[in-house]
Amino acid sequence: MINHDTIIALATPSGSGAIAVIRLSGNDAISITDKHFKSVKSNKALTKQKTHTIHLGHIVEGKKTLDEVLVSVFKNPNSYTGENVVEISCHGSAYIQQEIIQLFLRNGCRMATAGEFTLRAFLNGKLDLSQAEAVADLIASDNEASHQIAMQQMRGGFSSEIAKLRSELMNFASLIELELDFSEEDVEFADRTQFKALIERINFVLKRLIDSFAVGNVIKNGIPVAIVGEPNVGKSTLLNALLNEERAIVSEIAGTTRDTIEDEISIGGIGFRFIDTAGIRETKDVVESIGIKKTFEKIEQSKVTIYLFDAEQNIDKLDVVKFEIEKIKNKYPQKPLLAIANKIDKLNAQQTHNLKSQILNVLLLSAKTGIGVDELTKVLLELINTGALRNDETIVTNSRHYDSLLKAHEEVQKVKYGLETGLSGDLMAIDIRQALYHFGEITGEITTDDLLGNIFANFCIGK
Amino acid sequence: MINHDTIIALATPSGSGAIAVIRLSGNDAISITDKHFKSVKSNKALTKQKTHTIHLGHIVEGKKTLDEVLVSVFKNPNSYTGENVVEISCHGSAYIQQEIIQLFLRNGCRMATAGEFTLRAFLNGKLDLSQAEAVADLIASDNEASHQIAMQQMRGGFSSEIAKLRSELMNFASLIELELDFSEEDVEFADRTQFKALIERINFVLKRLIDSFAVGNVIKNGIPVAIVGEPNVGKSTLLNALLNEERAIVSEIAGTTRDTIEDEISIGGIGFRFIDTAGIRETKDVVESIGIKKTFEKIEQSKVTIYLFDAEQNIDKLDVVKFEIEKIKNKYPQKPLLAIANKIDKLNAQQTHNLKSQILNVLLLSAKTGIGVDELTKVLLELINTGALRNDETIVTNSRHYDSLLKAHEEVQKVKYGLETGLSGDLMAIDIRQALYHFGEITGEITTDDLLGNIFANFCIGK
Repeated sequence: MINHDTIIALATPSGSGAIAVIRLSGNDAISITDKHFKSVKSNKALTKQKTHTIHLGHIVEGKKTLDEVLVSVFKNPNSYTGENVVEISCHGSAYIQQEIIQLFLRNGCRMATAGEFTLRAFLNGKLDLSQAEAVADLIASDNEASHQIAMQQMRGGFSSEIAKLRSELMNFASLIELELDFSEEDVEFADRTQFKALIERINFVLKRLIDSFAVGNVIKNGIPVAIVGEPNVGKSTLLNALLNEERAIVSEIAGTTRDTIEDEISIGGIGFRFIDTAGIRETKDVVESIGIKKTFEKIEQSKVTIYLFDAEQNIDKLDVVKFEIEKIKNKYPQKPLLAIANKIDKLNAQQTHNLKSQILNVLLLSAKTGIGVDELTKVLLELINTGALRNDETIVTNSRHYDSLLKAHEEVQKVKYGLETGLSGDLMAIDIRQALYHFGEITGEITTDDLLGNIFANFCIGK
Repeated sequence: MINHDTIIALATPSGSGAIAVIRLSGNDAISITDKHFKSVKSNKALTKQKTHTIHLGHIVEGKKTLDEVLVSVFKNPNSYTGENVVEISCHGSAYIQQEIIQLFLRNGCRMATAGEFTLRAFLNGKLDLSQAEAVADLIASDNEASHQIAMQQMRGGFSSEIAKLRSELMNFASLIELELDFSEEDVEFADRTQFKALIERINFVLKRLIDSFAVGNVIKNGIPVAIVGEPNVGKSTLLNALLNEERAIVSEIAGTTRDTIEDEISIGGIGFRFIDTAGIRETKDVVESIGIKKTFEKIEQSKVTIYLFDAEQNIDKLDVVKFEIEKIKNKYPQKPLLAIANKIDKLNAQQTHNLKSQILNVLLLSAKTGIGVDELTKVLLELINTGALRNDETIVTNSRHYDSLLKAHEEVQKVKYGLETGLSGDLMAIDIRQALYHFGEITGEITTDDLLGNIFANFCIGK
């Protein structure tokens, strides 16, 4: 699978900007560039220049000058891919980008496939597989929590945890396999008590990692929150109030305005996806009933449910509100439910008192004036178990890793059972090897072309 | 106006990509970066590193790592702006870009205004004004011709032509002003014959530059071509046929797909803007009459008119076709008109012969089968006077330059007249100074804050 032909791609987002960066990687990346580069200051060939240096000059084709550029030279193995790499920083017009890439395609380069630069970095041992996967997560991350997890994974936090377990287990596996060679002599190189302790520890770590996926997965994709409430109870005003602070920061930085985020809002650095539902008020109307069914489906998919009602409109029929809250609670006893009374600014003291005494734990809010919004963000963050996040523990976010961890855990369970029941070393060795195999899948010590193809196909071209 | 505080902006297009580049410029650009950069390999401060070197490391804020980045260091005066410049190449997520820019905004940088990097390059003498303006043109260029003109201007082709005229005129101005000091002695330091010759030459060059604007301006904005023709004569098939080759090239390069270009098509490296019109067939219908009026307006605005008709439908009423062609020709005798008979594949030999003998210079075409499309592109290119382009002559594309050239030309005319009528040196000196002033406006030797503000406000932020 290793191939050192020279690949090229645009590394920066497509479109117009001040500059764009075109990246080449491969054995001949520097010498190919050299043929079409005329330095302003130096007559020395780019191939003779030191690694990690930058050169001002022109990209030329015959007599024609395509652009004035900066060329950065990175020499094998000191580059992202571990190969010779050139980054051409040109003026940011789509036309120029295209002309330069075409010039090099005609002269010994080929278009990189999706993720091929990172694939080469992996094949050349610059990154392990889970680190390579984290690169894509990092680029996709749009809030602090997912960014932090991807960053930790890219820097090798997760890999080193897995590698440590693997090497400890490997040691024992060797000892047990050694016993097999001396099986007639009935010796035990592998201390069974120590081994039991190790298996317990591995079991514990695996369990923690597997459990972390529940939180990791939602953090990566945004925590789904269903908002149950009829029209005009103030759903969009509430979302705007939550968005307010975030938006103010974003708009400060011209040039980084992002696309309209549907209803994904970053609260305390964690992405929440708010899902609007139609409410569950009973009706005989068939269309409405379908609405209620859909509301329940959305509650099902969400991690937290917000029941939002208009305090002013409902102050005289709080039993209806109570009934609906109970209905949701009964249907989803495990799911956190947050009852919020909106438009609280319209109530007088007596009404507010009534409300609080009738609906337990109700959150009093006025999306319009901002009362209770801070309290809501606090409660939302508390509902999500972000303890692991705060403690900088490893969190699994990748379903491929999760899958391998589950399989490894299963094998470790077998080993544990084998130890308890005095299973023979040769049988136990098979289970241990299986567990080791699944650990290896995560870091990429065990791979197939299919697996690599799947992983890197999801990357963008140029990475 | 010169200000050396440290500015920051995203230099690459916004959005997601493999990498993004954030640029800092100012006295403290390197030292500010240093405070938040932890090199992987070196303990040496960035301020101690050589210019044009690249450093791998992390952008950190306290204990938090924001990203793994490459930092490029450019030291005053060897940088784009002529100041200390740092380019941070980070992972291309909008979130990371935003976090890094915010970090530096909190720590001594401010957001760059539109074009501020290039403005600084101008103020620090790295580029003259017309070169700076060419940077924006270069980024906006989307075909070979406009790219080539912008490139030539950015590399100083135009400036050096103006500078040469200016310095020659300046010499004579000095001599004539010297005469004024010795006016009582009635000497002539400035040889009037040589001076006349110079003024003739300047006049000639100015005339050529002024004339080039007619072509330059349309090349920059795309050459407008009105297509006159009724519905279903095959206008869109024709445009698709013209687009075909271009599109095939573009789609080869994934990652550089550009936005749908309305009906702007690059032919032989020159952008043509095809403007659809409703045709001019006579009718008593009021709504249709409005359509005809609009068609004529569009012909008025265009550089070339294409009269497209369905050969099969019209073979028995060629006199109508002839009448319409004459009508356009009579109304716009100066404008090139190209009569095209489409669907020529539907005619037999006799019919084709008839068509050719009745409609002079008709271009026979079948957009569907591709017959005649090459011929059409050839004719279109011939109709546009691209001689100057081919001969690599300076072409004026900027209306500000055009305006200054016109004014300079006017003053030079006065000087010429003065020479012919034996005007006194002191009066002639005023006209010469005026001409010099207008030359200076082009290259930026004469500027005002207002003028600079206007020019750079049209740049993108980050350039």
